Amino acid sequence: MLETENTEDFSRLEKYLSDKKKFIDEQLKTCITGNLRLKQSMKYSLMAGGKRLRPILMLTVAEILGCDVEKVLATASAIEMIHTFSLIHDDLPAIDNDNLRRGKKTNHVIYGDALAIIAGDALLADSFGYIIKNTPSDVSREDLLKVIEEISLAAGSDGMCAGQALDISSEREEQVDKETLKFIHTHKTGDMINVAVRTAAIISKASDFELAALTDYAQNLGLAFQIVDDILDVVGEEKTLGKKVKKDQNKVTYPKLYGLDDSLHIANIHTNKAIEALSIFKEKAEYLRMIAEYNVSRKS
Amino acid sequence: MLETENTEDFSRLEKYLSDKKKFIDEQLKTCITGNLRLKQSMKYSLMAGGKRLRPILMLTVAEILGCDVEKVLATASAIEMIHTFSLIHDDLPAIDNDNLRRGKKTNHVIYGDALAIIAGDALLADSFGYIIKNTPSDVSREDLLKVIEEISLAAGSDGMCAGQALDISSEREEQVDKETLKFIHTHKTGDMINVAVRTAAIISKASDFELAALTDYAQNLGLAFQIVDDILDVVGEEKTLGKKVKKDQNKVTYPKLYGLDDSLHIANIHTNKAIEALSIFKEKAEYLRMIAEYNVSRKS
Repeated sequence: MLETENTEDFSRLEKYLSDKKKFIDEQLKTCITGNLRLKQSMKYSLMAGGKRLRPILMLTVAEILGCDVEKVLATASAIEMIHTFSLIHDDLPAIDNDNLRRGKKTNHVIYGDALAIIAGDALLADSFGYIIKNTPSDVSREDLLKVIEEISLAAGSDGMCAGQALDISSEREEQVDKETLKFIHTHKTGDMINVAVRTAAIISKASDFELAALTDYAQNLGLAFQIVDDILDVVGEEKTLGKKVKKDQNKVTYPKLYGLDDSLHIANIHTNKAIEALSIFKEKAEYLRMIAEYNVSRKS
Repeated sequence: MLETENTEDFSRLEKYLSDKKKFIDEQLKTCITGNLRLKQSMKYSLMAGGKRLRPILMLTVAEILGCDVEKVLATASAIEMIHTFSLIHDDLPAIDNDNLRRGKKTNHVIYGDALAIIAGDALLADSFGYIIKNTPSDVSREDLLKVIEEISLAAGSDGMCAGQALDISSEREEQVDKETLKFIHTHKTGDMINVAVRTAAIISKASDFELAALTDYAQNLGLAFQIVDDILDVVGEEKTLGKKVKKDQNKVTYPKLYGLDDSLHIANIHTNKAIEALSIFKEKAEYLRMIAEYNVSRKS
């Protein structure tokens, strides 16, 4: 993957990511109160680990734009709740039928299909109210509505759900073209990464110019991220990934349509585009730049 | 069921409900654009009929409070989208496994389980953005956030999803107590009826006093509505209901815990409480009163 000469940078980034992940995890613990079985099921998946990529991007964007991270924290948590809902539903026997995620049993394996479906539903339904209830009142009401509208769009029938639906129906197709593959990846993975960055920027009062640059960054990072996931499904190890490998054999993926070498090349192109988009922020954007570089070198 | 001497009232109400249903159906047709299979699946269930009870209640509340119905229309549509999502997921093989709903094949029978799950998810995710995008700008931003927060709470892990989850887990129990049954009905059916009435009242600038009265009405109507549904599952006819009867045999219901006669009696008590709660509105609330009376006499 993309070579970097600066391993010192990466170890600094790993410390940064680990600190931010801890901070997010503490916040996520407060998202679900109560102890009914439904709540246990929601907590199980929300707290089952994960990179916390989307919320970390949001904290980083807030820092770059000089915004108090407390202002984006509720939205960051809500976006991780929505991400978790999508994983629970993806893993269901009726969809991808995965028993392992992040090295742990998937939700339905422990709680049964019915409760897993409802736990996903509840995480999605709760997330919008969570933002409203927990965002500090010095974030303007207008901005908060913009944030909710963008998240709804990114998660819904023209966003993540559209990508997911086409991904499933493409499994039955003999041949899937490159345009369809890009549609699937853009929406299934990209839209929620994009909306994470954008909503953090909106709350942080980014200028139109800054918002456009960050959107450009996020869209390219989102695509690169999903292409790397596709590659790791082919070349990665189950133990490192914490999930089954070779599970995408029925799916349309970049390695399948482009081969491994070209897939990596395309991931690198998007990574470079993402980094270029950050130029207006100069050194302030170093962590966003490093996250994009790190993505193409990750093993899990 | 509750006897009324005034059949003329009921035929006037039926005309009112039919007109309002047509109005809502026209609006609902605009909620889902595009023609991908996911959209077809969402449209299929959203336009598969149904009483449109929740949106009709909202238009009626707006009228009583002298509010332009256009102001509540987007929220009314969103609440029907959320109601439809809950029906699609309830009907899944992993949950209630119903093949028939409103006389038509259920979503998963036509589109498969995977797409039915995603169609439900997408209806829920879209609904919040739909409100923001389509509510006239003379509804205050503060009120709109209140509306979204209440809907999120009513649909989520302390609302409808909580009732649904407990309903499922109660199927495995030997004995379910009356308190649990009331919790299930209050949340599974009641919360979305309640939030429909409340959000219409909030948008219509109801006073605290009016909001409390309407909440009292909605909570009692919601319970009466679900008890009548339970009764109809025992005494109703499949053809009239458009869904399987006796399908609740594994579920905890009012007829099972109280017997048919007492169940009807309890439904009537809640109906009377609902009507009493309307007293402050005098004759302006006649349609809300009639809807409550009509509920306990319905055959489907």
